[in-house]
Amino acid sequence: MAATTSPTSFLLQNPHTHHVKSSISTSHFNTLPLPSPSPKRISISCVASTTTSVGIQNPSSSQNPSDDRVFNFAAGPATLPETVLRKAESELFNWRGSGMSVMEMSHRGKDFTSIIQKAESDLRSLLDIPSDYAVLFLQGGATTQFAAIPLNLCKPDDTVDYVVTGSWSDKAFKEAQKYCKPKVIWSGKSEKYTKIPAFEDLEQSPNAKYMHICANETIHGVEFKNYPNPKSLLVADMSSNFCSKPVDISKFGIIYAGAQKNVGPSGVTIVIIRKDLIGGAQEITPVMLDYKIHHENSSLYNTPPCYGIYMCGLVFEDLLAQGGLREVEKKNKKKAEILYEAINQSNGFYRCPVEPSVRSLMNVPFTLEKAELEGEFVKEAAKEKMVQLKGHRSVGGMRASIYNAMPLAGVEKLVAFMKEFQGRHA
Amino acid sequence: MAATTSPTSFLLQNPHTHHVKSSISTSHFNTLPLPSPSPKRISISCVASTTTSVGIQNPSSSQNPSDDRVFNFAAGPATLPETVLRKAESELFNWRGSGMSVMEMSHRGKDFTSIIQKAESDLRSLLDIPSDYAVLFLQGGATTQFAAIPLNLCKPDDTVDYVVTGSWSDKAFKEAQKYCKPKVIWSGKSEKYTKIPAFEDLEQSPNAKYMHICANETIHGVEFKNYPNPKSLLVADMSSNFCSKPVDISKFGIIYAGAQKNVGPSGVTIVIIRKDLIGGAQEITPVMLDYKIHHENSSLYNTPPCYGIYMCGLVFEDLLAQGGLREVEKKNKKKAEILYEAINQSNGFYRCPVEPSVRSLMNVPFTLEKAELEGEFVKEAAKEKMVQLKGHRSVGGMRASIYNAMPLAGVEKLVAFMKEFQGRHA
Repeated sequence: MAATTSPTSFLLQNPHTHHVKSSISTSHFNTLPLPSPSPKRISISCVASTTTSVGIQNPSSSQNPSDDRVFNFAAGPATLPETVLRKAESELFNWRGSGMSVMEMSHRGKDFTSIIQKAESDLRSLLDIPSDYAVLFLQGGATTQFAAIPLNLCKPDDTVDYVVTGSWSDKAFKEAQKYCKPKVIWSGKSEKYTKIPAFEDLEQSPNAKYMHICANETIHGVEFKNYPNPKSLLVADMSSNFCSKPVDISKFGIIYAGAQKNVGPSGVTIVIIRKDLIGGAQEITPVMLDYKIHHENSSLYNTPPCYGIYMCGLVFEDLLAQGGLREVEKKNKKKAEILYEAINQSNGFYRCPVEPSVRSLMNVPFTLEKAELEGEFVKEAAKEKMVQLKGHRSVGGMRASIYNAMPLAGVEKLVAFMKEFQGRHA
Repeated sequence: MAATTSPTSFLLQNPHTHHVKSSISTSHFNTLPLPSPSPKRISISCVASTTTSVGIQNPSSSQNPSDDRVFNFAAGPATLPETVLRKAESELFNWRGSGMSVMEMSHRGKDFTSIIQKAESDLRSLLDIPSDYAVLFLQGGATTQFAAIPLNLCKPDDTVDYVVTGSWSDKAFKEAQKYCKPKVIWSGKSEKYTKIPAFEDLEQSPNAKYMHICANETIHGVEFKNYPNPKSLLVADMSSNFCSKPVDISKFGIIYAGAQKNVGPSGVTIVIIRKDLIGGAQEITPVMLDYKIHHENSSLYNTPPCYGIYMCGLVFEDLLAQGGLREVEKKNKKKAEILYEAINQSNGFYRCPVEPSVRSLMNVPFTLEKAELEGEFVKEAAKEKMVQLKGHRSVGGMRASIYNAMPLAGVEKLVAFMKEFQGRHA
């Protein structure tokens, strides 16, 4: 794609934006910056203030264009589909004639039972989860699973293998040290977590109980494109690419994910576990970390995070309505492609440190050649209603998280802004 | 109060119901039962179908009378204030001009920071929490705290005392067995959990690290009206009467509560802990159960249950707007009084097994002298839009949970129904 020469013309050149309206949110428009003293500065405020959904992500979202909505590139909690939010809004006070909000329902009543069962059933359809796998809706984030996994799968002297591709797999490894003998069999730390190892190079420990990976590192933006096939079991933290593409569940012993990236609000953790792995928890396992308890009680041992599960259910419905995860993956690939392309074609003005073959479709970290401009980039983008672009505090730079619910229009707008910004500062 | 002689006349006799409108939810009215073959059956459907808020619970709730709302007596998740739900509904899609839902916000961004800080500050005002106590917003329910408390306060050989007044304190005791040497110093089991012990009868263990109580047993309906003063520390599960009345926090080492009874949706657990008790967790403590981690990170070590915390914040604002917990307690006493009075004055038709001096203001368990009518009672009440009155599966009978957000009108309607039902079946 050619670099945009006129900062006001990119929309005309872009085949994906023909539905974009020029409506402007006056409440935000007032906060736009005054014309820059730079002679190169040409405001793209009118174009960039359009946040109308182009309906690519979700066919029905264009029915309620929301001019005051921002494009939210946060790494999680993250943007949710507009149609899901509108549905939740319409049902918040009185869920489908029940006379109450989902937040008020007994978790053991028939209404909530129907909600959690439908959520599980739709998730099973989306991921084609085999019947010998249990689906658990839990609390506490992936971080709780960092302890639960070794507590449930290991005795204290058991060896387990960790592939450390970024901050999250490193945290998982450290927590496991409390409960078994974990070994880092590969670490990308010396290369600043920009790579995924070649599987044939992994030296598995003899008798390791499992191999743990983080399928997508939210902070560093590296993503497994396929999966190792360990002699033991494969266990994966999929928090930040869960339901972003099809996955062959049968390759895994356990997949776990916080919901707050691709499938719902924070406060829900989903665990998909092969049933024969359930039941061997160490005696010191807190009851709330024991998979057996949750499996036997269909995730209702104690009160689950009901509203969050309901929201996940709405997202699952939306993903199915889009045609399932193959269609979702196509959209995610398209979004990531235009963003990485913009970086690649910037002549080094923008840089992504990650090895091209393992760049994440979900989290795109990048820096500026002129690092001193990064603050200005983030600030100006925010004024153009593209928010949460600052990189994680541990790595700096920028990061655009473009999960399922980020519309293509959001990425296109970001790419246009990047080119315009480069035009002014190159 | 005299027994109602005419089932259609009770509203006229009741001084609290003069605001009740006779509007009928047609969608539900259609489901009302056909006239009973019993000659005594006189339908109270028209009266009972009014679910208009009388604005006692919340002055502004009468602005949006919700004719299709039920009275929800569930034990938790439980009814929430209508004004809070309406506020949440109005802000769901776009929180205060932020361009996003609270569910989409980064937990480290300024908007959510303002939400969680305001929630903590309002909770501190409500309960007058001293500055040497930390407030933590966690996940996993009280059940997770059953493990976290001994893990944080004890070494494996430490003795701790448990007062077992019902199912929940019994569960807390059992979980503690994994992490220290808990001792049951009093149990109400032989009397079917209908009593609270006299404090002078409690034989504390020498060197016990703490004494654990459950301030209100949700299932059995027994509530501490004041608190023991152990030589060690007092630790209380306040899940089901948290923020229902003022509490002298300084008497406690730790107070913990699931939010889903009085202050929010499920998925949020609040821990109030004296700061000097933080920092001594056993090495096997999962990081997510370590109070030090959460305190040092202001409850943001990992992604918290953001939307639930936001909802709790709305409830705290509502409780403050009502005049604080002294006013809330007055309303709760009034509601409980008329319900227990109805039971007491039923000549044994209705029975509450709990010792009168320790009957809960929150959870009112009762049975019918003619146990075979209990199913009919629950079913007919539901048709009159009073739902979730079935007792916990472990004890049977009925249970009316009348937390903060249950309007007086709901309890009055239940009492009227009870009298009418008795009139037909006595």
